[in-house]
Amino acid sequence: MSGVVVTRIERADAAVISRLGEHGVATVHEAMGRLGLMQPYMRPIWPGARIAGSAVTVLAHPGDNWMLHVAIEQLKAGDVLVVALSAENTDGMFGDLLATSVQARGGLGLVIDAGVRDVRTLAELKFPVWSKAISAKGTVKATLGSVNIPVVCAGAAVNPGDAIIADDDGVVVVPRRKAAAVLAAADKRTQNEDDKRRRLAAGELGLDLYGMREALAKAGLRYVETLDEV
Amino acid sequence: MSGVVVTRIERADAAVISRLGEHGVATVHEAMGRLGLMQPYMRPIWPGARIAGSAVTVLAHPGDNWMLHVAIEQLKAGDVLVVALSAENTDGMFGDLLATSVQARGGLGLVIDAGVRDVRTLAELKFPVWSKAISAKGTVKATLGSVNIPVVCAGAAVNPGDAIIADDDGVVVVPRRKAAAVLAAADKRTQNEDDKRRRLAAGELGLDLYGMREALAKAGLRYVETLDEV
Amino acid sequence: MSGVVVTRIERADAAVISRLGEHGVATVHEAMGRLGLMQPYMRPIWPGARIAGSAVTVLAHPGDNWMLHVAIEQLKAGDVLVVALSAENTDGMFGDLLATSVQARGGLGLVIDAGVRDVRTLAELKFPVWSKAISAKGTVKATLGSVNIPVVCAGAAVNPGDAIIADDDGVVVVPRRKAAAVLAAADKRTQNEDDKRRRLAAGELGLDLYGMREALAKAGLRYVETLDEV
Amino acid sequence: MSGVVVTRIERADAAVISRLGEHGVATVHEAMGRLGLMQPYMRPIWPGARIAGSAVTVLAHPGDNWMLHVAIEQLKAGDVLVVALSAENTDGMFGDLLATSVQARGGLGLVIDAGVRDVRTLAELKFPVWSKAISAKGTVKATLGSVNIPVVCAGAAVNPGDAIIADDDGVVVVPRRKAAAVLAAADKRTQNEDDKRRRLAAGELGLDLYGMREALAKAGLRYVETLDEV
Amino acid sequence: MSGVVVTRIERADAAVISRLGEHGVATVHEAMGRLGLMQPYMRPIWPGARIAGSAVTVLAHPGDNWMLHVAIEQLKAGDVLVVALSAENTDGMFGDLLATSVQARGGLGLVIDAGVRDVRTLAELKFPVWSKAISAKGTVKATLGSVNIPVVCAGAAVNPGDAIIADDDGVVVVPRRKAAAVLAAADKRTQNEDDKRRRLAAGELGLDLYGMREALAKAGLRYVETLDEV
Amino acid sequence: MSGVVVTRIERADAAVISRLGEHGVATVHEAMGRLGLMQPYMRPIWPGARIAGSAVTVLAHPGDNWMLHVAIEQLKAGDVLVVALSAENTDGMFGDLLATSVQARGGLGLVIDAGVRDVRTLAELKFPVWSKAISAKGTVKATLGSVNIPVVCAGAAVNPGDAIIADDDGVVVVPRRKAAAVLAAADKRTQNEDDKRRRLAAGELGLDLYGMREALAKAGLRYVETLDEV
Repeated sequence: MSGVVVTRIERADAAVISRLGEHGVATVHEAMGRLGLMQPYMRPIWPGARIAGSAVTVLAHPGDNWMLHVAIEQLKAGDVLVVALSAENTDGMFGDLLATSVQARGGLGLVIDAGVRDVRTLAELKFPVWSKAISAKGTVKATLGSVNIPVVCAGAAVNPGDAIIADDDGVVVVPRRKAAAVLAAADKRTQNEDDKRRRLAAGELGLDLYGMREALAKAGLRYVETLDEV
Repeated sequence: MSGVVVTRIERADAAVISRLGEHGVATVHEAMGRLGLMQPYMRPIWPGARIAGSAVTVLAHPGDNWMLHVAIEQLKAGDVLVVALSAENTDGMFGDLLATSVQARGGLGLVIDAGVRDVRTLAELKFPVWSKAISAKGTVKATLGSVNIPVVCAGAAVNPGDAIIADDDGVVVVPRRKAAAVLAAADKRTQNEDDKRRRLAAGELGLDLYGMREALAKAGLRYVETLDEV
Repeated sequence: MSGVVVTRIERADAAVISRLGEHGVATVHEAMGRLGLMQPYMRPIWPGARIAGSAVTVLAHPGDNWMLHVAIEQLKAGDVLVVALSAENTDGMFGDLLATSVQARGGLGLVIDAGVRDVRTLAELKFPVWSKAISAKGTVKATLGSVNIPVVCAGAAVNPGDAIIADDDGVVVVPRRKAAAVLAAADKRTQNEDDKRRRLAAGELGLDLYGMREALAKAGLRYVETLDEV
Repeated sequence: MSGVVVTRIERADAAVISRLGEHGVATVHEAMGRLGLMQPYMRPIWPGARIAGSAVTVLAHPGDNWMLHVAIEQLKAGDVLVVALSAENTDGMFGDLLATSVQARGGLGLVIDAGVRDVRTLAELKFPVWSKAISAKGTVKATLGSVNIPVVCAGAAVNPGDAIIADDDGVVVVPRRKAAAVLAAADKRTQNEDDKRRRLAAGELGLDLYGMREALAKAGLRYVETLDEV
Repeated sequence: MSGVVVTRIERADAAVISRLGEHGVATVHEAMGRLGLMQPYMRPIWPGARIAGSAVTVLAHPGDNWMLHVAIEQLKAGDVLVVALSAENTDGMFGDLLATSVQARGGLGLVIDAGVRDVRTLAELKFPVWSKAISAKGTVKATLGSVNIPVVCAGAAVNPGDAIIADDDGVVVVPRRKAAAVLAAADKRTQNEDDKRRRLAAGELGLDLYGMREALAKAGLRYVETLDEV
Repeated sequence: MSGVVVTRIERADAAVISRLGEHGVATVHEAMGRLGLMQPYMRPIWPGARIAGSAVTVLAHPGDNWMLHVAIEQLKAGDVLVVALSAENTDGMFGDLLATSVQARGGLGLVIDAGVRDVRTLAELKFPVWSKAISAKGTVKATLGSVNIPVVCAGAAVNPGDAIIADDDGVVVVPRRKAAAVLAAADKRTQNEDDKRRRLAAGELGLDLYGMREALAKAGLRYVETLDEV
């Protein structure tokens, strides 16, 4: 599947994606059944960045950013560029010129399992990036990869058109066909959280709020005054 | 010692802890004889965070945050939650709900040899955390650990009631019984530093201020104009 | 070459260094033929730091900062202290007192393949540092190293008097004798970039701007509507 | 898809898998178009181990090996157990008892993105394992995962029934439907390699054998006697 | 506690230590309640090494092996040298001369949270070492540490006289006072394992042997023929 | 200096190199004044490998092994190929075909700051390799690097013609012009070591053999029976 650009992809529903983004990564990941997270080494290059969009995927080779130029032509408004690598790499494959081009096409940001550069300018542009590294190391344009094929990015499987939610907690991938169901689960979870937050802030203990005491006792938890009793 | 909660611990003196906090981690670590530091991978999740408190310790298992709920009941005002893991782990074991609960109990912050999530909210709450990772990965509540037993957190031994000092330079642990002596040593060290800072700022060299020239010469240091002389 | 301080070094031209600094690390690295970068683990301790100066080099041993005091005497206005280690190390070899001394001598900042501490104060002083780690771990003064000899710092060869350019993208080393030629190449490159940025912002594709379509087709790139066609 | 065991999977053709195994990982990976490799941190626990089998996949949680017991029931002769984790983990999730059980079911070996233990006994049993770590850390049986669903293991997407080829060079995944085509490409590649090996052993240069000289000259390669000429 | 050598320590019972060693690290760690393991980066420098002994502890500084010479005088027959570092370090602090001296004193081997060298000779001498790294980097003799004080080595708390069990699975520490109780638990566990091994080898499933089916069903595990049913 | 092949280099004296090799890496590194070591992540791919040769250097780019073919033409009998990368990389840039070609030219082995593959065959060929990684990941032939220019490999500066000594302890670089002086220092050191080994084996303590007791006492070392005395 190398050297292929898929031009017609289906995207997750934009309204659903947007509302998933409001929930944030931690809640969406829980609503997914604790799945879909990229590795925690994927960090935002400036604090506070948040995006929710539809994936345009790229498979590139270490030290080569040729396919990123190819991918940008496939971007539509609301898309996020998701770049997977065929092997470990930290080179700075993306900088302010590519960001300018992504923004001109309506792209929302970048998720890349490699490095980026020009990070000061990217922060000034408010262009959101989650990457494995920051590196000025330049790249070549020599080897074909592919665009809009299934990829593995930072340990997560991503298909073109999947919803990508990213914030300070990391990046989570929601399969396109599950987006609505995950949103419903996230909505439910958030309602619960607001109530819990109020009660915890009032001093109620999680032990009581979640009714944990019985299960803990059953598991054998012992309360002692000092370790000498053990 | 698994499955035990020790309910009666002695805490380091609050006034001593507070003054240790004013000295900061680097000075306290020096006053300790260059001991007691956690590994440098323990980083604050927002810049400028500073705390000094008394440790309530937790031993938890990878991917399981059950004991954190148990530990919060043991917190008193001025305490810091110190969470050690029985094996390497980066899961997000702590988020904004638990932080709300810790604050409601008067807890000052968290030191955890694993991951945390909801970091944007934690920063807004000004809730200080030093952690190994940021990760949205959720956890289960299935396996007993212990609370207020001696633990090893990020390479440092911590006993319940020890003083925990943390700032942008990292986290240092001061054994409860040594807290007063360490404070005295830190006080002395800081006085010296202010004088040194003034003299260095005025252009005096450390070589002269610390009287290093003789020892360097004795050790064989040679000054040459160019490497050709060597 | 251990235990040697070279006192007479030639420095790259100050005006050239200054203009290289305006270009920034990514551009200078490209102008160098994609060489000269330090490893990407070298990160600024506060965001936005930028320097361009002439290297005063130090070779030190793990856990020992004796030679940093020796090196400060060799600093002139516009110099950057570049500290290489004889083995992997993360100890906090440099703090606010040494920074005060460097600034008093006209030094611009620090690049160190180890740790630093007092980072809050260093940020308040606007003292720029690129380091491998932040650590409060204190050091001793027991073993001779050398000053102003050729060193390898974070994977890059540095000779005393080389130009050091550092910003949010990392650190690049420009050999003294090549500084003028690299500047010329960087000037040319930047002019091109401004034009490209305008055209990309206007929606032109990199594929067209850089004339990539023919080469991609020749390499065998296929556009398909769906993967079923492959 | 958590808490699901798929009981009816299609497997790649056993004869094809066996012949892929004879080619070895490096050749198969090349025949795949340089795709399908797991991360290089996946290493055999004893040197010389080689397997080729059909994947039975497991998704497990950090510190929990419950689903491995579930998966073993699904093994048929010639299968390889491929264990993916929902988050980073090095715990020893698999030891000699599980290996005994896998062998009794006809399973060939284990590929696991976490740790294993009892490695001395596993080596004596000649039970092949590729893992991220060796660790005696024990695990619990508390949380559901899934068996025979699509997973990401060590950076590679694996579907149940895919061919898994593993040797001293690492682990490569061949999608079930592509196995025959990849075998054909590998066969062709190996024939070429034998001829090349003979000619290279006889002293012929790769520059000539592969006809690289013209392309190198065109790219601008210069031969000089000394660097002074540059 | 820097600069102290404790000369009178109590050791765990030699017969108990020896029998713990026969159980091996994984079993002893389980018998401890899944505690006491050093980090998995601690690896034997030659395969098949196994020891069980009583700890003589050392706290040393990065790049400085002075205290190892001091510690050797404190060794008795059956002791294991356990070297903790005050900060991260990979220098080669120990080589064949020190090993010769340890063996001459009746010491059994070395556990060190740093590097070693002369590993070929150490293997020829059958001198067992578990270390964080192999490195030829030499060290100095300049700074005091301590001998036979409580230390943290590779994430585990070690007191002088604790039992140290090490094999291909890693290193586990058994507190001196718990050694007999841990041995009893390990004995019981091993008996169980032999029976389990026989039954698993005969084809019985862990699901049945451990009676897991009911708990799995209760937790919600679903068996489906294909994913389409989910 | 990209795209350059230097064809006329001076090599260190073959007899000197050979005798340095007999001393081994640890001794040569000490004789160098504890300098010249590559990072400890450089490991032999099979145990017991040892070489001593003259460096032919290569600067290559991540994922591209074109220049290795160019470099092999420059090899003479007794040379070692030393491959530096312009950025971090673990791809398998070298395999059995290239090894066959190196051996046909009289080359002794490979030192590479990246990955290698076909390691089983390389071990069978007794072809010695020190590398950062083992990876089947294939590479392209697209971008020029250089041959026989000064490089930084795994943290060490290497000039063409320098002596490369490698064994189980790692890799050390001896500058060509210092080779004879380093050999003399190594000879002297080894004589001393043989005498020390005998005395230590006979039970003499390093404390007495090296006369350390006075210096330790002067530094403040205290011997106590128990910690209560401290």
